Amino acid sequence: MELTKSHSDGTVCPVACTASIIGGKWTLLIIRDLASGLKRFHQLERSLSGISPKTLSERLRSLEEEGIISRKMYAEVPPRVEYSLTEKGQDLVAVIECMRSYGKRWLCK
Amino acid sequence: MELTKSHSDGTVCPVACTASIIGGKWTLLIIRDLASGLKRFHQLERSLSGISPKTLSERLRSLEEEGIISRKMYAEVPPRVEYSLTEKGQDLVAVIECMRSYGKRWLCK
Repeated sequence: MELTKSHSDGTVCPVACTASIIGGKWTLLIIRDLASGLKRFHQLERSLSGISPKTLSERLRSLEEEGIISRKMYAEVPPRVEYSLTEKGQDLVAVIECMRSYGKRWLCK
Repeated sequence: MELTKSHSDGTVCPVACTASIIGGKWTLLIIRDLASGLKRFHQLERSLSGISPKTLSERLRSLEEEGIISRKMYAEVPPRVEYSLTEKGQDLVAVIECMRSYGKRWLCK
């Protein structure tokens, strides 16, 4: 999602910055899934019905680069990879909870 | 923004429902602007630098149809039209404030 991250006076808008983080098609849903604890790739894939493995990999890599999730790989055969939220990611859960309250009250009836 | 609004078990996700409301390119910014009080068309246009009048009209109409904003027209010459948030729109402001707190802490430094 492209947003105007700055006001007309040139100052940066923190609302638009946050929107650009969670505005991607799957990003929010990945964070929602990780909010309940660490997950392996196939668990996320199963929960996010309709996502392709390629897209899920890309989203996870991008969230890792933004410091929102961390990826831990275990030297097993086959390799085990687990994803979890960082502190920056955990804080985003509060935003998601705000969205959940609103959705329950006004949208999902 | 297209999101999977239902879980794989078929239940509707209130987080994804809310995301689909605020996920549009300009929607969130329009609500942010109306949160500080009613606005006329040209005030919104000036605040949302880069938006075309056509796009702004479309977004406002769509938000009105969703019951998030209300439009009041005064029989003056030229006609005066004012936009404000409904109760459903006001509640969305809490979601925006969550996003603002997060953005200030983690993103806009």
